[in-house]
Amino acid sequence: MDQAKYEAMLQVALEEARQGFAEGGIPIGAALFTEDGELVSRGHNRRVQEDDSSIHGETDAFRKAGRQRSYRKLIMVTTLSPCWYCSGLVRQFGIGTVVVGESRTFRGGADWLRENGVNIIDLDSAECRELLERYVAAHPEVWNEDIGKE
Amino acid sequence: MDQAKYEAMLQVALEEARQGFAEGGIPIGAALFTEDGELVSRGHNRRVQEDDSSIHGETDAFRKAGRQRSYRKLIMVTTLSPCWYCSGLVRQFGIGTVVVGESRTFRGGADWLRENGVNIIDLDSAECRELLERYVAAHPEVWNEDIGKE
Repeated sequence: MDQAKYEAMLQVALEEARQGFAEGGIPIGAALFTEDGELVSRGHNRRVQEDDSSIHGETDAFRKAGRQRSYRKLIMVTTLSPCWYCSGLVRQFGIGTVVVGESRTFRGGADWLRENGVNIIDLDSAECRELLERYVAAHPEVWNEDIGKE
Repeated sequence: MDQAKYEAMLQVALEEARQGFAEGGIPIGAALFTEDGELVSRGHNRRVQEDDSSIHGETDAFRKAGRQRSYRKLIMVTTLSPCWYCSGLVRQFGIGTVVVGESRTFRGGADWLRENGVNIIDLDSAECRELLERYVAAHPEVWNEDIGKE
């Protein structure tokens, strides 16, 4: 799949992140696609909106995909490099490809996933980075809570 | 904390697992406790009951604990060694101690957590093992789905 297709998928995750921002939440979005580029599900972090610490962008998209028998050929697209919680999800369920919007604000487990055979594509998107940085600058305590930083 | 206190905590997770079994679901339960042994939250796997692939025992207990500013001193008790998804949760949020009912049916990320500084206590409970084995023997396809095995 070429870069332009991954960029188009990232726009869906970015729409989710922007929606989260508009709701007053942490702006991280994610989506699952088939290998042919069809959208399976999409979601975003809702820690603030629902007072729910378990809803990261990736876990939300995963949940909304419903029960799947195999994730090997699915593509997880996320605006931010997945944290350990979401990296563990990717590894346990054998999601084959992860498209990462950016990994400058937060690194997470992307290298660990790559070492374990997951195809990681980092698009180094300035849009993703700027949106999250804007939130983190305004709400550092919520951001630290979301990544378990004391 | 002595072994008897961990065993008592495990009984709460085991009650959750039994409830899941009675509901027709995968019998894995978990609970979060303070370092003084006070119950914070409890939960169980509800993949079958709610058709929700994201609800493992540990993620359910974590969600029900609500937003916490620190997990360092909390104890996660689970009837089964945590899978990568739940191990990632433990690592990201810095849960300091994990009490494991058993790790014979499924190993998961317990060793990885130990290498990363998490205090892992494996109680090697025959009750936990027998309950899960009974389910796995009857519903191998649901069990494989739950651990992402194709």
